[in-house]
Amino acid sequence: MGCCSAIAGMPQSKRRYAILGTGALGGFYGARLQQSGLEVHYLLHRDYDHVRQHGLVVESVDGDVILPEVQAHARVATMPPCDVVVVALKTTQNHLLPQWLPSVLKPDGVVLVLQNGLGVEPYVAEIVGADRVMGGLCFICSNKVGPGHIRHLDYKKIALGDYGPNYAARGITERLKAIAQDFEQAGIPIDQTEDLLWARWKKLIWNIPFNGLSVVLNASTSEMIGDPHARQLAIALMQEVIAVAAAYGRVLDDHYIQQNIDHTEQMKPYRTSMKIDYDEQRPLELEAIFKQPITAAQAKQVPVPLIHMLYQQLQFLDQRNQGS
Amino acid sequence: MGCCSAIAGMPQSKRRYAILGTGALGGFYGARLQQSGLEVHYLLHRDYDHVRQHGLVVESVDGDVILPEVQAHARVATMPPCDVVVVALKTTQNHLLPQWLPSVLKPDGVVLVLQNGLGVEPYVAEIVGADRVMGGLCFICSNKVGPGHIRHLDYKKIALGDYGPNYAARGITERLKAIAQDFEQAGIPIDQTEDLLWARWKKLIWNIPFNGLSVVLNASTSEMIGDPHARQLAIALMQEVIAVAAAYGRVLDDHYIQQNIDHTEQMKPYRTSMKIDYDEQRPLELEAIFKQPITAAQAKQVPVPLIHMLYQQLQFLDQRNQGS
Repeated sequence: MGCCSAIAGMPQSKRRYAILGTGALGGFYGARLQQSGLEVHYLLHRDYDHVRQHGLVVESVDGDVILPEVQAHARVATMPPCDVVVVALKTTQNHLLPQWLPSVLKPDGVVLVLQNGLGVEPYVAEIVGADRVMGGLCFICSNKVGPGHIRHLDYKKIALGDYGPNYAARGITERLKAIAQDFEQAGIPIDQTEDLLWARWKKLIWNIPFNGLSVVLNASTSEMIGDPHARQLAIALMQEVIAVAAAYGRVLDDHYIQQNIDHTEQMKPYRTSMKIDYDEQRPLELEAIFKQPITAAQAKQVPVPLIHMLYQQLQFLDQRNQGS
Repeated sequence: MGCCSAIAGMPQSKRRYAILGTGALGGFYGARLQQSGLEVHYLLHRDYDHVRQHGLVVESVDGDVILPEVQAHARVATMPPCDVVVVALKTTQNHLLPQWLPSVLKPDGVVLVLQNGLGVEPYVAEIVGADRVMGGLCFICSNKVGPGHIRHLDYKKIALGDYGPNYAARGITERLKAIAQDFEQAGIPIDQTEDLLWARWKKLIWNIPFNGLSVVLNASTSEMIGDPHARQLAIALMQEVIAVAAAYGRVLDDHYIQQNIDHTEQMKPYRTSMKIDYDEQRPLELEAIFKQPITAAQAKQVPVPLIHMLYQQLQFLDQRNQGS
């Protein structure tokens, strides 16, 4: 575990964070980390000028966070090497990571992938090495409503896990504990997970049906969960996800289906992140949320006809949406 | 074949037709039959007053048909008993048939079901007897564009078949030939089919994917066929239809898939009938086009996961569309 000692051993106040992608997710978590006293560097694209001049505003159910000054960067070249590089981009931007990560990541630092779906950590591992990757699943409702302006509506928890080659479970490592502590001191509850892949499949149980169907059916979570047909279809999709996870030794009991249904029923009516992307004519995160899980299923010969059909429908809609 | 002799033996000029549902289909075929010299009675609902006063207008690629006077009826009670009762309603109105058919059908007459999907003939057989039912599949692009005003865009052929109990193949019966002759003398090409069920499954190969996906994907035929993902999905749906048909002894070679693909590519961009119904907030013909085929698949334990998923999506969309 030599790879972890540097981070685990560092004084907490000195840990330096980079946020790649200062949007709904990166803007929220970055602002909270900065507010807790950590040094945070933000990579921005369109919003760079605005944020450099006016900082970040997070309107939040927990109380607003106003940061008039932040360390904004338009290019990774100006960012100092960081201990923790948070990948909070849309996965559709991940082709930029090979250019960005090597220069912004300290030799003993770690990349924290805060994205949905499957397969990003192995991809990052190829760039920086498998011992410098962690992953997190964010349970949060937040949107970017303007340049440097995030609106945080509900939830904020992260399920955090360390990454082992080919998603081998790593258990609770020292660096996981250290980074969890940074987030917790910034008021972000952390579920420390021993098995990142298990956590990823567990979140896909929700993301695959509800992200996908929200776009195809042009529907909010409450419309879907309130209709018996959409609800049954969501359950059937969840069953396929569970079957694939099981083929990888990640057993998710059927009670997770009921848990997801109950939870979705209790949520405020919610436009999923994929639906927001679609409505704003951004490319959909189909590679990570659909293609990688389907590829994983095919590798183990688990039939996933419904997920595959949903993926085909989404590819059609995405391409038309991007073309127009 | 005693049931057929009365019709087959009647002088052609005396055959009296009833058209139940004077819309895109019934208005077109009824007008052509009347123009050829046959007595035709039309049942109308909303358009009754207009058609009684102004007759029917069919704008057509074949040349317009203007009928200033037609025998319009607001209720079946005023219609005389007819030799051929053409059911050209939307299948969503078929609950009205038990009230209507007995009074309008001559004892030796026949009901001709000109609707898509599966299962209507057995339903009509329960009302009038299995020896008084025929079916037809219409290959036509036409729309009702106003009261008593039909626009005929392309095609017009009917595949006509006699009905045997539980869709047993009846071969080419005398009454089939006689009715085919009426239509052909009215300029409507007829494919006489020996096996109505085979013809129904053959048409479902197209209707299930393209009617269904046009609504879910909000797409024209050309958009679907031009996109590799939608096209592959359409093919996968067709394969399921073919598998169910095979379980009923109706072997449809895979070359029908290519034929349907080629044909759809060559068609003018076309809004399917189900899409038109959806856009005009009419209930969708899901029972005949989806539920009955799925029930047939289940009875033979043929898995149809994709058709079932499409059906669930359509039920969601239909109910929301009807509710709003």
